[in-house]
Amino acid sequence: MAIFNNKNKDERELGFGTKNYNSRVRFLSPDGSINVHRAGLGIGNIDIYHWLITTSKLNLILVIILGYITINFAFAGVYFFIGPEFFGGLDSYEPFQQFMNLFFFSAQTITTLGYGHIYPIGNAASIAAAVESLLGLLSFALATGILYGRFSRPKAHLLFSKNLLISPYKTGKAIMFRIANPKQYELIETEAGFTITLNNPETKKREFLNLKLEISRVNFLPLSWTIVHPLNEESPLFGLSKKELLERDAEFIILIKAVNDTYSQTVYSRKSYKPEEMIEDVKFKPLVPEVDKRGRLRLTVTDIHHYDVVN
Amino acid sequence: MAIFNNKNKDERELGFGTKNYNSRVRFLSPDGSINVHRAGLGIGNIDIYHWLITTSKLNLILVIILGYITINFAFAGVYFFIGPEFFGGLDSYEPFQQFMNLFFFSAQTITTLGYGHIYPIGNAASIAAAVESLLGLLSFALATGILYGRFSRPKAHLLFSKNLLISPYKTGKAIMFRIANPKQYELIETEAGFTITLNNPETKKREFLNLKLEISRVNFLPLSWTIVHPLNEESPLFGLSKKELLERDAEFIILIKAVNDTYSQTVYSRKSYKPEEMIEDVKFKPLVPEVDKRGRLRLTVTDIHHYDVVN
Amino acid sequence: MAIFNNKNKDERELGFGTKNYNSRVRFLSPDGSINVHRAGLGIGNIDIYHWLITTSKLNLILVIILGYITINFAFAGVYFFIGPEFFGGLDSYEPFQQFMNLFFFSAQTITTLGYGHIYPIGNAASIAAAVESLLGLLSFALATGILYGRFSRPKAHLLFSKNLLISPYKTGKAIMFRIANPKQYELIETEAGFTITLNNPETKKREFLNLKLEISRVNFLPLSWTIVHPLNEESPLFGLSKKELLERDAEFIILIKAVNDTYSQTVYSRKSYKPEEMIEDVKFKPLVPEVDKRGRLRLTVTDIHHYDVVN
Amino acid sequence: MAIFNNKNKDERELGFGTKNYNSRVRFLSPDGSINVHRAGLGIGNIDIYHWLITTSKLNLILVIILGYITINFAFAGVYFFIGPEFFGGLDSYEPFQQFMNLFFFSAQTITTLGYGHIYPIGNAASIAAAVESLLGLLSFALATGILYGRFSRPKAHLLFSKNLLISPYKTGKAIMFRIANPKQYELIETEAGFTITLNNPETKKREFLNLKLEISRVNFLPLSWTIVHPLNEESPLFGLSKKELLERDAEFIILIKAVNDTYSQTVYSRKSYKPEEMIEDVKFKPLVPEVDKRGRLRLTVTDIHHYDVVN
Repeated sequence: MAIFNNKNKDERELGFGTKNYNSRVRFLSPDGSINVHRAGLGIGNIDIYHWLITTSKLNLILVIILGYITINFAFAGVYFFIGPEFFGGLDSYEPFQQFMNLFFFSAQTITTLGYGHIYPIGNAASIAAAVESLLGLLSFALATGILYGRFSRPKAHLLFSKNLLISPYKTGKAIMFRIANPKQYELIETEAGFTITLNNPETKKREFLNLKLEISRVNFLPLSWTIVHPLNEESPLFGLSKKELLERDAEFIILIKAVNDTYSQTVYSRKSYKPEEMIEDVKFKPLVPEVDKRGRLRLTVTDIHHYDVVN
Repeated sequence: MAIFNNKNKDERELGFGTKNYNSRVRFLSPDGSINVHRAGLGIGNIDIYHWLITTSKLNLILVIILGYITINFAFAGVYFFIGPEFFGGLDSYEPFQQFMNLFFFSAQTITTLGYGHIYPIGNAASIAAAVESLLGLLSFALATGILYGRFSRPKAHLLFSKNLLISPYKTGKAIMFRIANPKQYELIETEAGFTITLNNPETKKREFLNLKLEISRVNFLPLSWTIVHPLNEESPLFGLSKKELLERDAEFIILIKAVNDTYSQTVYSRKSYKPEEMIEDVKFKPLVPEVDKRGRLRLTVTDIHHYDVVN
Repeated sequence: MAIFNNKNKDERELGFGTKNYNSRVRFLSPDGSINVHRAGLGIGNIDIYHWLITTSKLNLILVIILGYITINFAFAGVYFFIGPEFFGGLDSYEPFQQFMNLFFFSAQTITTLGYGHIYPIGNAASIAAAVESLLGLLSFALATGILYGRFSRPKAHLLFSKNLLISPYKTGKAIMFRIANPKQYELIETEAGFTITLNNPETKKREFLNLKLEISRVNFLPLSWTIVHPLNEESPLFGLSKKELLERDAEFIILIKAVNDTYSQTVYSRKSYKPEEMIEDVKFKPLVPEVDKRGRLRLTVTDIHHYDVVN
Repeated sequence: MAIFNNKNKDERELGFGTKNYNSRVRFLSPDGSINVHRAGLGIGNIDIYHWLITTSKLNLILVIILGYITINFAFAGVYFFIGPEFFGGLDSYEPFQQFMNLFFFSAQTITTLGYGHIYPIGNAASIAAAVESLLGLLSFALATGILYGRFSRPKAHLLFSKNLLISPYKTGKAIMFRIANPKQYELIETEAGFTITLNNPETKKREFLNLKLEISRVNFLPLSWTIVHPLNEESPLFGLSKKELLERDAEFIILIKAVNDTYSQTVYSRKSYKPEEMIEDVKFKPLVPEVDKRGRLRLTVTDIHHYDVVN
């Protein structure tokens, strides 16, 4: 790549802009998430539903537990302020225990459990309890929506090979990576897009170039798929060396689009490779699925990472 | 635009019809909502679910609270009509307080709270309570659906630059505006359509013309995207002046289509600019994202409004 | 149409097959539903969720009420069989009233209301109540799903003009009909397909022919859209008369596809016209939206039916 | 097929790879499910939501019942450990019966039924009950999501004819099969893809070849659709015999894509035929829908299997 293969450049507008960013910033994290933080609108940048849908399970459980404690604490305070004498069955004259019992009464009210061994007496206490039970139902409706939203979110947990390979291909070479669907659901109509972004020392700009694939679409993805960009004269990377890609701070960006046919949802999966993750003069070990006892082809998906050295 | 550039007109059927409407009516509100009220079918024009999904949070909360009070009031009336003597635990011989206690009993029934310190005696009271609790469950099912529907509604809260700019472009000029996605979710496969509608003084009709974009599609939208219509000889607006656009009551109509990849939903965003919002002889200030402490590119989305004067 | 315009036939496979059906059977009902009953698999033809989602509100309410009564009746029977003495608070020694009270206890259990003035004593009664409350929660989960499914179902309640018109068009004639969206939500990217099916007396077969539209797609549909098939030499119906269409038992089939942008759902609307609904030598009355007090264009959607006689 | 019709091969990348698998393994099961088991990630291969959505009704009911018993057993254990003296209304001094009553108390708590004849006394018991009722609400939210997910899952229960037929077609022959939609919902925009996979004895590889269809798309599918691959000179199977297909372990793979217009969902249906299921010198019996009492066309969908012998 001493001479950058300009005549074959198919510059692609990816939406990142073409400014010459400080190098050493990765556009996509290795897991495919876009490495950008958008600010400027304060809380207007935050979409609370998005956060609840995409945060970790642990975070969600913490939010639910803390929310439950806080709201019961708040209502226990309201009930205590109204007066413990307006609640039947409290069974205590000690203020702390009265507060605790009102806390439990609140929990029994917000979940619409309502044992009734503690119950409101008089209008103020009854109104507060009526408000809390409505709030409980609505919170529960929200929780139902959030749990369903998390569960039914489009999924494409694709497994990508750890490395990009430069392998022999026909009479020349090609850049290759492999993907597999590790899950039980099927992906169909799978399409791949392959792009490179790298600095152009002449224009001092960052360029985004489309890399043509041998095959860019498969109908099914039951086993694995080796995605191949031939390094022939049509490639903008013809004559590339790994060293030059490192110098130009290149980043390979992959977008996979497929249909998850259990839910008929179009799903997207992104991946980024840096030149450090490229290996030269190797080729992928063929995957040979065995036939298992039940007569099915058995694929060990983690085998997609394996490669052999080529002499 | 003394001579309207007829040979390059790509008249576009947008669905607004081509009647010469009373001028000074905006087709789209600045926020992108279509400025049309459809009547003629009475309540047949109203889709209650649509209203509940799209109305403001405040309206929804008011509807829920008023509905809750009304329905409890109605059932309290039914219970009072059946007779306070058919309810155990009412603890009062004063009619107003009896009614209030039946109101609270209704609230405890419709939320399926059921403390039980007040309870129905006899068939009429028990049947009414059985009906109310079923109604409560179904109302709650509806509320769950509505809250989920609001939360999971496709979202494309795009930020558009406040102004349309006429900026230098190559050897001539171009109309430009900028968009950014202010939220945490990613938009992919973003497409833009750009149209102008304006009066034609010769035909006395309103015309809708397609304005060709330099690039009409980007794969990602992590930062901002400047959308450019070159004012070259191919443009129907070649030779335009802001004054003429004002006279012809022009309106620029933009439709952005993208995929929100958290939900794999295709989302749409509309925007309208009037010539009053155009600024000549300026250009957008470049957006230079910084790298923040966590190694991410940081974009201040509100910077998309900024421009510099061009000499 | 004395000579059937064979050279322009663009025969279209609609999926109805091309057998010469007994004439006088309409393929589509006037409301667009397909007039076919599929049998042969017994209850395997029935999709219960589909029925619950698409049946009338009245049917759904009846199913819910009857289901509620039936299930409470059944559980009351179980409880009565276990023995009224195993229930505290029954307050009656009269078997019918005991049964009624167990019926109310069942209603309080299945809705998880649980006042507790009636309560199970002993293992058999407690187990039955535990089963019923689980069943209640699951039924309610189903009801939530069904109500949400009904509410969120894709909607395209298009209004079609009552008649197909044969109107003057340029130097000749055209078949026209008009559609409008009567609802508050917006339809975008609206596409129309127009087909005719009619008997061919020569081949004794039923033919399906595509009718080309002047414009088959609009970006928005805020007002109305007049859909036009020009009866020029390219039309397979060039030279048609209403009388011949009646003799050949023609049926016009329309499929409209649009995106409801509140939900980003692709929605479909079908419509069928018979030659009896065609009117010759008329043209649609132009729709002139007024500007209402709030500055919006106001369209009376039912005006799309109106036409004027042409001399 | 003595000479394999190489010049017309349109080799198709289906995503199965092109290795020469042990023959006698079917890629698709007769019901269309892909006959592959993916392993290598341990429980990382398992998607619990997918399993709950796609498992049989019986499995789901078993999971719910066992889960309900287990969780109540666990909480009964916790309550018993806290001490039966901390629960009012237990009405027993016998440990086993105390445990049983705590089991029923647990069931009344997790369903938020809360009769209240048994109730917690003191902080430990009240906290445990507050936790259980929250857990109950969340479990119920999950159950709602799973039941809705199962119900609303995209469906295309297509019926395929039992056999692939080699039938006379124009002046030659064609491979044909028939499909029908047995359900009440309508399928529109139905598309078919037809592929064959077979061993190539020369290259020792498995090939995937696209088989061109006479018509590959229909707008509606109210009745049946006969899908036809003409065995003309353009077909890679021109000159085929059933015997050779058997020797090469051929498998016909069909992918049908359609829109279920009740839910506007794109749905997929797969089917595989082996040469053993081919019948030569027959043709499908025409399906003649009758008109039923309500004026609808009546189709017996199971008639799609029937064929007549051709002389």
